[in-house]
This record gives sequence, structure tokens and C-alpha cells, in this order.
Amino acid sequence: MIQTITSASNPLIKSIKKLKSKKMREETQTFYVEGIRAVGEALRTNQEVLHLIYCPELLDSDYGNQLIQTFDESSNVLINVPRDVFKSFALKDGPQGIAAVVRQQWSPLEMINKVGGLWIGLDSVQDPGNLGAILRSSDAVGGKGIILLDDTTDPFHPSSVRASTGAIFTQKIIKASFEKFSLWKSESYFPLIGTYCGDAISYRSYNYPENMILLMGSEQKGLQSEHLEICDEVVTIPMSGNVDSLNLSIAASIVMFEIYAQKRDYPK
Amino acid sequence: MIQTITSASNPLIKSIKKLKSKKMREETQTFYVEGIRAVGEALRTNQEVLHLIYCPELLDSDYGNQLIQTFDESSNVLINVPRDVFKSFALKDGPQGIAAVVRQQWSPLEMINKVGGLWIGLDSVQDPGNLGAILRSSDAVGGKGIILLDDTTDPFHPSSVRASTGAIFTQKIIKASFEKFSLWKSESYFPLIGTYCGDAISYRSYNYPENMILLMGSEQKGLQSEHLEICDEVVTIPMSGNVDSLNLSIAASIVMFEIYAQKRDYPK
Repeated sequence: MIQTITSASNPLIKSIKKLKSKKMREETQTFYVEGIRAVGEALRTNQEVLHLIYCPELLDSDYGNQLIQTFDESSNVLINVPRDVFKSFALKDGPQGIAAVVRQQWSPLEMINKVGGLWIGLDSVQDPGNLGAILRSSDAVGGKGIILLDDTTDPFHPSSVRASTGAIFTQKIIKASFEKFSLWKSESYFPLIGTYCGDAISYRSYNYPENMILLMGSEQKGLQSEHLEICDEVVTIPMSGNVDSLNLSIAASIVMFEIYAQKRDYPK
Repeated sequence: MIQTITSASNPLIKSIKKLKSKKMREETQTFYVEGIRAVGEALRTNQEVLHLIYCPELLDSDYGNQLIQTFDESSNVLINVPRDVFKSFALKDGPQGIAAVVRQQWSPLEMINKVGGLWIGLDSVQDPGNLGAILRSSDAVGGKGIILLDDTTDPFHPSSVRASTGAIFTQKIIKASFEKFSLWKSESYFPLIGTYCGDAISYRSYNYPENMILLMGSEQKGLQSEHLEICDEVVTIPMSGNVDSLNLSIAASIVMFEIYAQKRDYPK
């Protein structure tokens, strides 16, 4: 179906704006993505795109227009809006004139056993920008996805989606309580490597298994003793200087790229 | 001098609030820092603290109170404010009740030759959070400072200061046009290693010199040809996956930690 909407107070436009709130994202199990690249990745990876919204006046990219032309509007809605309506919900100044409402995809814990490879476990991550950057790095090293433990920020938050630069669509996303995760771990024997700010083996000295979860603590507290207890090994990132820790997404990425380098047998 | 201010419309309190704007920070060559750790680092590293502001009702840390007690108010101003006044300028919800106005410190390009070691050059960095995270990582690997080229975000922006977790005080900060930097480079012969998204030697294969600048491109464009031309070597971070680049602060940190690992002769 193709629809033209000329008013920013149209109920559908209003519902798109409301996806900025976590509550509405949870209720509808959808989220908002914006920009040629992000929308392109949503379509390329066969996400369920409920609404594809575009503004002909703003969309001056060939690839962007191709996305519109090849969109299957038999079961979904293609929405044509004027500039002022697009700008009423756009997140970016100078928007590219293409956006989408996409169905959230969540995977169960059992997906880890099924897929194998490298996964990133995050305890109580708070900053959506950090979460998105971790998704981006995980994609870059061929990681499979993330496991969000306990009280965590929303991976479908606009800041996470933007920082992921499309990796929100390629990475599998799992959410679990620590209790459930711990039970799954005790039954699955899937290797779990924690990172710790303190006395532990250097992240450069450890030989990482092919299938594993890299477990990171929260920005404020790091890994807690209950987490460390279920880890098969704990590694640390040695540092000099005055700061006593790194940004969470940076610490996660440094270890991820070490794992990646080991697997690729980089010359060293 | 000790001063008690009970009104949020006091001119001094108003001037503190105005430090959220880049214009005011530039005019006064000062910036605002908040929280026990950041203020503690400012004092520990002997920064010029023009105003130390505290709120006895909010400040319940021994270390925080010790900072107040040992503050030399002979030449600077210690300001006691009630809760509502502190909250009127505080950046954080649930502030710790201690903040400071600190003099900006800029170093000249010649500082690089004098100090040697590892430096990070950043072309047109836009996001203050990225800049602060790079300062934090640079401190963590014993780096000496950053060089900001051309049109760059303000390192004294509150988001940069916060993300640096104190490294804003330990890292030397230099600002220069690319033209001036290029001239300095041609005269100093200081080694310059660029990072590039594309065909170049792997960042893990290169043997980094003891004294060097790691040059990073902007978030949007990476390193441009004029930058690449003056580099002594260019390295790349190999990746798999669908994303074609990493977050700037993550890419910088991955290379920094490789350099650090080489210098420390980690077992590998």
C-alpha cells in the first residue's frame, strides 16, 4: 500500500514520533531507523519493515530511491511525506529523507548453542551509545550477537541504533536475567570469559576458544562476584596512567579485536 | 577567600552556568568540572582552580571534604552553596556536591618534541564524547596528549571532560591548523603513523617507534589524501562483517593498545 500523508498530526506520524519512548517501543515491539544506510541494511537483511517513510524532496540519493522502488508494498506500507512532516519526526538535522519502522527481533538463549562463535555478554549496560558501539565492533570481528543481562538499556533506543551503524540488524540480540543465564550456562557448558579490572591474566596472553561469550560488567561497577563465579576464565586489560578503567565499549572492543587477531592468525 | 552564595541568580553562579556554552569557555579560557573524582584530579595535578564550589548538604564523602579542607583559598575562591543553588548548575542528576572552574591549559606543537612518547592526532573530530574517551584511553596507555587539527570539537566541552574521567588534566592538549601542523612535521621529522580504512599494513604487523603521533581521521571522512601524504606509514584495522568502519574512539584505542602491548613486550 502506498499512502501520502501531508499532516504532522496524522495518527501514523504521531505513532512514529512516539517510538522515541522506550514504553512505546516495548508495547509495539517495533523501533525507528533513519537514513539511507540504516534503512538499506534493514531491507538487505530482510527485516520486517512495517512502514517505509520517504520524502521525495529530501531523498536525492540513487541508492535511496532504489530502496523505495524495490520495496514490496504488497504487505507493508510505503508512506510519502512532504519535507515539514519528515522533519517533524527526524532525529538528525539535515535528514536524508528516508526512515522505517522495523519489527524488533529477539533471540532465545538457546540460539547461542545453535550458532556458536563469539558472543558479547553485557551486565546492566546503561548507555545506549556504548551498546550500539559494541554491536558495531562485534559485527566488525564477525561476532554473532549480544546477551543483555538484568537491568539494561534498550538496544532499540535511537542512540544505540545510530551508533550500531546497521549492526542492530546483523547481530542477534538476547535478553535474560542473570539467574536464567546462569542456569543456561551450567547446562550448556558454553565457554564464558569475563573481563575484570584487577588481578587476572592479561587479555593478550589467553588463548580464546572458538566458541565463547565475552562477559563485560557495567560501566559503574564492572563484573560482580556472582558473575565472576560462573566464568571459566577472567582476563584483564593492563594499563598505566592515572585512569583506572576504560570506556565500556572500548574495553569490549580491545578484547574482541585480540580474539579476532588470534583467530585470523595475524603475523605478530 | 571563602564565600557563601545563597541565590542561583548571583552573577558568579550565572557565569558558572554559562560555561556550558563554547563561546563563554573560549572567552574566559576556563571550563567547568563536576564530581569528587574530576575535582580531585584537577587539584592533584595542580591545575589552576579559580573557583571550588561545594554544597555541604550534598557532599558526604570523606575524600570530597578533604579536598575542600586542603584547598588553598589564599588566592582562589571557595564557594559554599545550598542544595538548590548547586542543582541549578549541576550537570548530573544526583550531584555529589563538589565542582570547580578550572583554567584551560593548551600546549604548543613544540611540546611534542620536548616530551616525546605517544601522541594522538585527530583531524576534525566532531563528537566530544569520542574526544573524551580518546583522552581516557591515551592516559591508560601512558600517552602524552592529543593534537586537534582544523575544525574540531572543544576538548573542554562537558561531555568530553566527563568521558575523559580525569584524563583532561593529565593529557597535554594542542590545537593547530593542518597547515601549521604539516610545516611543523616537515621540520621536526617526528614520526607520524596514520590509520586508514582500506589497503594498508595491518596495525598488528607494524613495529611502532618509541616516539610517534598516531593520526586518526574524522568520524565521517577518515584521513584525507593531504593527511596521508605527510604520514611516514599508514596502518589499517582489518575487519570482517558488514560494517565498514569502527567508532573513532574505539579504532584509536585498538591501535593505542597494540602500540602499548608492543612496548611492554607482552607475552604473545
